[in-house]
Amino acid sequence: MIKKYDSNKMYQLVLKIYEAYGFSRTDSEKVAHTIIYTDMHGIESHGVQRMAMYDRFIQNGKIRINSSPEIVKETKVSAVIDAHFGLGQLNGIYSMELAIKKAKESGVGIVSTKKSGHYGIAGFYANMAAEQGLIGISSTNSRPGMLPTNSTQPFVGTNPIGFAMPANPHNFILDFATTTVPQGKIEVYRKLEKDLPEFWVAKNGITPIHNHTNDYDLDLLRVPKSNVGLTPLGGVSELTGGHKGFGLGIMVEIFTSILSQGDISSEIDGSNPDLGPCQSFIAIDPTIFGDRDAIIAKFSAYLQEMRDLPAVPGRKVYVHGDKEHLSYLDAIENGIKIDDATIIEIKEIATRLGVSANEFLA
Amino acid sequence: MIKKYDSNKMYQLVLKIYEAYGFSRTDSEKVAHTIIYTDMHGIESHGVQRMAMYDRFIQNGKIRINSSPEIVKETKVSAVIDAHFGLGQLNGIYSMELAIKKAKESGVGIVSTKKSGHYGIAGFYANMAAEQGLIGISSTNSRPGMLPTNSTQPFVGTNPIGFAMPANPHNFILDFATTTVPQGKIEVYRKLEKDLPEFWVAKNGITPIHNHTNDYDLDLLRVPKSNVGLTPLGGVSELTGGHKGFGLGIMVEIFTSILSQGDISSEIDGSNPDLGPCQSFIAIDPTIFGDRDAIIAKFSAYLQEMRDLPAVPGRKVYVHGDKEHLSYLDAIENGIKIDDATIIEIKEIATRLGVSANEFLA
Repeated sequence: MIKKYDSNKMYQLVLKIYEAYGFSRTDSEKVAHTIIYTDMHGIESHGVQRMAMYDRFIQNGKIRINSSPEIVKETKVSAVIDAHFGLGQLNGIYSMELAIKKAKESGVGIVSTKKSGHYGIAGFYANMAAEQGLIGISSTNSRPGMLPTNSTQPFVGTNPIGFAMPANPHNFILDFATTTVPQGKIEVYRKLEKDLPEFWVAKNGITPIHNHTNDYDLDLLRVPKSNVGLTPLGGVSELTGGHKGFGLGIMVEIFTSILSQGDISSEIDGSNPDLGPCQSFIAIDPTIFGDRDAIIAKFSAYLQEMRDLPAVPGRKVYVHGDKEHLSYLDAIENGIKIDDATIIEIKEIATRLGVSANEFLA
Repeated sequence: MIKKYDSNKMYQLVLKIYEAYGFSRTDSEKVAHTIIYTDMHGIESHGVQRMAMYDRFIQNGKIRINSSPEIVKETKVSAVIDAHFGLGQLNGIYSMELAIKKAKESGVGIVSTKKSGHYGIAGFYANMAAEQGLIGISSTNSRPGMLPTNSTQPFVGTNPIGFAMPANPHNFILDFATTTVPQGKIEVYRKLEKDLPEFWVAKNGITPIHNHTNDYDLDLLRVPKSNVGLTPLGGVSELTGGHKGFGLGIMVEIFTSILSQGDISSEIDGSNPDLGPCQSFIAIDPTIFGDRDAIIAKFSAYLQEMRDLPAVPGRKVYVHGDKEHLSYLDAIENGIKIDDATIIEIKEIATRLGVSANEFLA
């Protein structure tokens, strides 16, 4: 069952848990903020629901509590960071703050970060830049899940891209896996016992898997070098543009693992603590092109024109960030949605760490 | 009928035609190079086939022969250019050369160009950077063709993105419309009297149009504010990722018309000579991240691993640029493919301009 919880109290609980792991107060605040931000914006798959996974990684040493990101190469407009397998969110915030600083000083900042960890949603980091009036872009590679066009074996990660641009009444935030859907979507459908409605998963490169009870094949999605994979955005055929999603996945790989000389998606292995994802962080100051207010006003008017277009009966045109903003407003008023299984996981973690969870879950 | 023509001779003919229009020798060489490059790489829809369209635009004043691009704002890493409606290819080459110069000096160059014209293929400009060891990105907005998710009326352009990265044995070049297919693809299928095999065109936002004889509806693709449009990459449903293609189209709009404060896709009107597309040109020097050779070697090995993956029987895994490179090698050996209708158009243009075409078409 899914219940609603007060976001401020849940923030306090997450903060206490991360302090109990041994992270500093400041770092724990950052982690709690990214996690609660994610739930408040309606992306529940990547919020507190992921704390159990991070907990496993903290316990098995894949996430190293005492690691700090290190700048290994730097110019006025760029940096390469070795994150030494610290917590992904902390690496992400550090890296994007550096990109933002460079953008404010030099117009553009591009940071490529290796030996990182799972960092949550790409859109969070992109929006860090937008919150400061800049264009923000972030992406991450990930375990191999995507089928290159015509291949029967997954090789490219789901490699999401987050892109944010300041706008009124709220920022434009585009955040998407370069596969048709991310891995998490398949898990959600299996938990809900729903068949996969579209061609999201392919066996042998071309055969769709729809049946949610096909555990044998769907479990292969997590097995390296299997014959089951996620379709790229656009599907498995060039006639539907599948080669475009495949190409976008490669683009992400360039800005993450290739430029930083880190581990590429196909090398990432959940069980090996010395291999980890790479991420990219770009900030661009629009004032190098013109007046910030005029640019934002023009962009906001453009977005509003699209919201006002004639729509399919019963539907509405949303631009990217609209639905997330509605979730956010609702979360302030009514709390964030968390399922019972996740609450049990969080309580177990809290108890183990000597944190009293109940007062925050009232 | 399609015949093959010697690319060097065809280059000479295009060069003479552009000189006869009144372009300088140097400018005419640039235009001829981009056009013949396009045909040699197998993208015949955007090569000499487009000369008739450019001819109409030169005659009606939409393309202005004596215009030169003007830098209206500039920093070490950026520029805004007003192209004053000069020929798109010349604006594109000028703009990308400026982005490359800035990337070589400062690591990154981002140029946004307004009041431009149809510039051919985005991948050509991206590859100009890759030819010099840099990452290159280019995009253009265009007349409204794409349906925003849930809308019944096209609003966003087909807004293609070209992305190139140096690699061995040849550069990686990704070049794609952010719609499932570009306008030109629909025209090709109609000319060939073939039905549209996939959900490329939607009526009222959700109804696929497949029948190539449905002239009434397919002609509406060119009519502003009609109820027929191209599907975004990913289709018209969020279940197939259509909102992602829509978002990519908006991203292109930001880097082209929003940052340059030029005309947005929905404002572009083929019949109004004072409205024109905007383009974006980005160059990034990989040496700001690390050793160029090491980065290119890592990337090339990554691409080769994908080419060697197990494939669907009878198919092969290609990475972006492979097919175009094979076309190029074939064109050197056997010439470029041009249909008779296009040859007749070129002859008509040549004759009108006093250029003797026959000697180049032997």
